[in-house]
Amino acid sequence: MRRFVVIGQTATASGEFSLDDLPATSGRLDVLVRCVRAALLVSHGLRRDAMIYLVLQGGSRAPRTIKIDGRTAEYVRPDERSLAGAIRSLLVRAESPGFDVSTRGVALADGGLDAVIADLGDFTPYVLDESATDMRSATIDLRNPVFFVGDQLGFAESTRSRLAVLGALPLSVGPVSVHADDAITLVSNELDRRAARA
Amino acid sequence: MRRFVVIGQTATASGEFSLDDLPATSGRLDVLVRCVRAALLVSHGLRRDAMIYLVLQGGSRAPRTIKIDGRTAEYVRPDERSLAGAIRSLLVRAESPGFDVSTRGVALADGGLDAVIADLGDFTPYVLDESATDMRSATIDLRNPVFFVGDQLGFAESTRSRLAVLGALPLSVGPVSVHADDAITLVSNELDRRAARA
Repeated sequence: MRRFVVIGQTATASGEFSLDDLPATSGRLDVLVRCVRAALLVSHGLRRDAMIYLVLQGGSRAPRTIKIDGRTAEYVRPDERSLAGAIRSLLVRAESPGFDVSTRGVALADGGLDAVIADLGDFTPYVLDESATDMRSATIDLRNPVFFVGDQLGFAESTRSRLAVLGALPLSVGPVSVHADDAITLVSNELDRRAARA
Repeated sequence: MRRFVVIGQTATASGEFSLDDLPATSGRLDVLVRCVRAALLVSHGLRRDAMIYLVLQGGSRAPRTIKIDGRTAEYVRPDERSLAGAIRSLLVRAESPGFDVSTRGVALADGGLDAVIADLGDFTPYVLDESATDMRSATIDLRNPVFFVGDQLGFAESTRSRLAVLGALPLSVGPVSVHADDAITLVSNELDRRAARA
């Protein structure tokens, strides 16, 4: 199972945003929404071996985290508006039932990075970092890798420290700094290739 | 200059679609819109060495083709709604001024694949095909490559034949069949890596 944790420094944890102007009203939740498609969807359906956490650090109800589990997810649409609409419906609820309570593979919990780390269980942490070792030449745990991904602002210093303490290995996806969803696409492809060779 | 040609078999060439339900009302123009972001945008702006053609084969005014030139493009936003809105504004116009008439790097022409091929000038053609040779082990022209990309339906048989006559080399991006925008992201990364090594 490959897992991605996208940390949205400004992405809103409340449902008070407009689907008609997602970038301007949601603290750039659009960036995270695109990561969902990249992590979970392929041409003919869902990646059943993938999971994504969206850590929402913006807005009045932050931090909260959404977890989408490819093993049990249903009706994950590729377009931003559908995905953002589903996320908004989840966020407007008063309660955050926790990672153990999932509806069609989707869960919402209070808490941010610490809550995610507690939920991950056994894993090998990696952090996507443009100045790091090229992932193509790195050893990657194919069984339980977790990739921490920054948003349009990168990572906050406190997050970097937390990930360093965790022992996360920095990996680069290439020589050009790309969007978070592209980074997830590139990691997924590298894992697909290694799995096919294994 | 790297160029991508995405062929939308159902994507509408008329502007008569709703931004509130792009997938259902535009013949899956959403697929092509996501390709624009993947081809042209990176973390800190636009790829000035990239260009994308969207061949629109659906709807009453088909075929028409949009060309977005990274050298001169401005205000290209990453979110689907903004991109789709810009495309709609272009498509609702009565006239299609042709590839030579561009506004902020964006042009609209009548015609489909043949019009694109006539516009391409000097180029080496490649066609993305999941069953083909792995791009990582292929020789790729870095000066003037053109990548033909299918939509959610793949390629029509007539398009396949046309590309074969053109001598397009089939390339695969990996062992899993991915969305068109992911394929563009993967090709772009491979080209970035080769350019960095050159």
